[in-house]
Amino acid sequence: MDPLPLLQNLIRCPSVTPADAGAMAVLEAALEPLGFTFTRLRFGEIENLFARRGSEGPHLCFAGHTDVVPPGDLGGWTADPFGADVRDGVVYGRGATDMKGGVAAWIAAIASLPRDLPGSLSLLITGDEEGPATDGTVKVLEWMQANGQIPDMCVVGEPTSKAVLGDTIKIGRRGSMNVAIAIHGVQGHTAYPQRADNPIHRLVRVLHTLTATPLDQGSEWFEATTLQVSSFDVGNPATNVIPPVARARLNIRFNDLHSSVSLTRHIRDVLEEEGARYELDVSCSGESFLTQPGAFVAALQAATRQAAGVEPKLDTGGGTSDARFIARYCPVAELGAVGATMHKSDESTPVEELRALSRLYAAVIAALLPARAFA
Amino acid sequence: MDPLPLLQNLIRCPSVTPADAGAMAVLEAALEPLGFTFTRLRFGEIENLFARRGSEGPHLCFAGHTDVVPPGDLGGWTADPFGADVRDGVVYGRGATDMKGGVAAWIAAIASLPRDLPGSLSLLITGDEEGPATDGTVKVLEWMQANGQIPDMCVVGEPTSKAVLGDTIKIGRRGSMNVAIAIHGVQGHTAYPQRADNPIHRLVRVLHTLTATPLDQGSEWFEATTLQVSSFDVGNPATNVIPPVARARLNIRFNDLHSSVSLTRHIRDVLEEEGARYELDVSCSGESFLTQPGAFVAALQAATRQAAGVEPKLDTGGGTSDARFIARYCPVAELGAVGATMHKSDESTPVEELRALSRLYAAVIAALLPARAFA
Ligand SMILES: [Zn+2]
Ligand SMILES: [Zn+2]
Repeated sequence: MDPLPLLQNLIRCPSVTPADAGAMAVLEAALEPLGFTFTRLRFGEIENLFARRGSEGPHLCFAGHTDVVPPGDLGGWTADPFGADVRDGVVYGRGATDMKGGVAAWIAAIASLPRDLPGSLSLLITGDEEGPATDGTVKVLEWMQANGQIPDMCVVGEPTSKAVLGDTIKIGRRGSMNVAIAIHGVQGHTAYPQRADNPIHRLVRVLHTLTATPLDQGSEWFEATTLQVSSFDVGNPATNVIPPVARARLNIRFNDLHSSVSLTRHIRDVLEEEGARYELDVSCSGESFLTQPGAFVAALQAATRQAAGVEPKLDTGGGTSDARFIARYCPVAELGAVGATMHKSDESTPVEELRALSRLYAAVIAALLPARAFA
Repeated sequence: MDPLPLLQNLIRCPSVTPADAGAMAVLEAALEPLGFTFTRLRFGEIENLFARRGSEGPHLCFAGHTDVVPPGDLGGWTADPFGADVRDGVVYGRGATDMKGGVAAWIAAIASLPRDLPGSLSLLITGDEEGPATDGTVKVLEWMQANGQIPDMCVVGEPTSKAVLGDTIKIGRRGSMNVAIAIHGVQGHTAYPQRADNPIHRLVRVLHTLTATPLDQGSEWFEATTLQVSSFDVGNPATNVIPPVARARLNIRFNDLHSSVSLTRHIRDVLEEEGARYELDVSCSGESFLTQPGAFVAALQAATRQAAGVEPKLDTGGGTSDARFIARYCPVAELGAVGATMHKSDESTPVEELRALSRLYAAVIAALLPARAFA
């Protein structure tokens, strides 16, 4: 089965989050002849799909998304973002790499393999990966848990490859948290600071402490944790007034040496040390996770080496993906297309690369399903 | 002559800067019978008055202002801010202490002394002390310079007394400057700070350096210089974006160990050390000044001791006053009423204290005019 027509059908659904635009129906039509049964899961305004073939273990799940980011400035495109035109062997359209291409390649891979594989296959497809991700993978996993459908292992089809197909497998991601700090002082006149308490000076001290020393030097599989102050705001129009409050916001991308809890404690310690009245508001959009290299990852690497002819590097870089949710349930790794054009104008994928990805996925499935001891 | 009716006439002119509201005419009517000749000096929308009696040296000038700050929230007043009512021996009204009271007391003091004092007397009265101070004392002094009217010494009638009349003589003031700093970085994603350059982190470092160590420990006559950050603004709404620019504003109140030039150089050095692209905008509203204690100040102290019965402390605290302009031309000191209610609701002065201030000023004039060697 050629993944190209399926990818084209998917691209022609303008499924900008939260719109489904018929994308799930395209998948159902492709999966039904392959023997899958499926459950549409609508949460809020989001369409999600869980499809499964077989009930035995090992259970290998493919996780992906059909929603895409908006095309952005149309002037930057030389093709219709939802046209799926092929020009000089390259198919253009929003989602070509991130990640309708991955979804189409995986389904074509299944079609190319015999039906009597050991174990069972499932697909977890969401329409809310590029959006708030609240009515997507998280809720499908809860439903899967409640219905005895948690897989033994999962491959996420994000475009992880950097220069050449298969060169990178992501086995983890850094966590990300946003922090808002408000420090309260005592308002006063700049000529008499001894009668006031300048919250800006206190916040400068706190941020200096938080930024002067790196939080770590990286770990075995991760880059160093980074802490960036994204805003610092006082909004005091009077040059001779010490303001009553100063606010800052931080974004922290953290590795497996930390958690949102340990980092919150660290920030709170610095604030307590400063000794001022403060408010601290933390929201964690994802803890860091790591699938420790072992049999599952080794099988992925071997299949990639064999099918794509490159030695895949294990990586944990980049932003967050839905893999952070799946990691709570089973071993998960991300492997997919070259991501160079993702989220950009003229997002596209060479047709031969799409077909090579499908062959790679077929090798991955064949490598993972015979083995019964990965979980 | 009792200063009370003159003060009441002045209070009843609602001369909120820049309005004169008839205040200068009240002064002219009081000064004319005392033998003064006067020149009205209108600069922009501001009325100013220069009055002089005699032409010999030594020439003692009294500097003051008839403009007042707005009454503010009328709900805080128990009296009409422009009514000049006397209740329980206290006269109420905007300017009662700052400084229509001082002006009235000085003129009454002249009236109480013989006409044949040695030397000569003048008054420099402006209507732009509480405002931008651009069309007031500065320009009157330029006119006086051009017309051979620069005095040998000057007393400014600001309400300098803290608890008891005469307890404080101001012989200098700290300077004040406003500084705006913008630091430019390179915008980017908080997940990839190595590809960006966070200007907030740079500005935090710069401000930490500027605030961590006091600029001095004070000098013989001055408190320590203070540097206060009054605002820090980025206004970045995106939590995952490193912004391109960060801005802060500072107010520095500096003593005679510094000047606006030396402080600007210091800030520039810290910015250069940081090594980022920056903009620095400095505006100095007044250099520090000091009238070194000597014969002039000693005579003021002796007269205060004798007339008010307290030992005056020499002081350089507080904000700026028009004395900073006069100091460029001649020795100047500030001596006046208890300032507790200045700029507040129910600004007021006890009538007996007003009369005591007038007797104090008479002693000051008598002490200063016989001596010919102060300049
Ligand atoms: Zn994606
Ligand atoms: Zn004043």
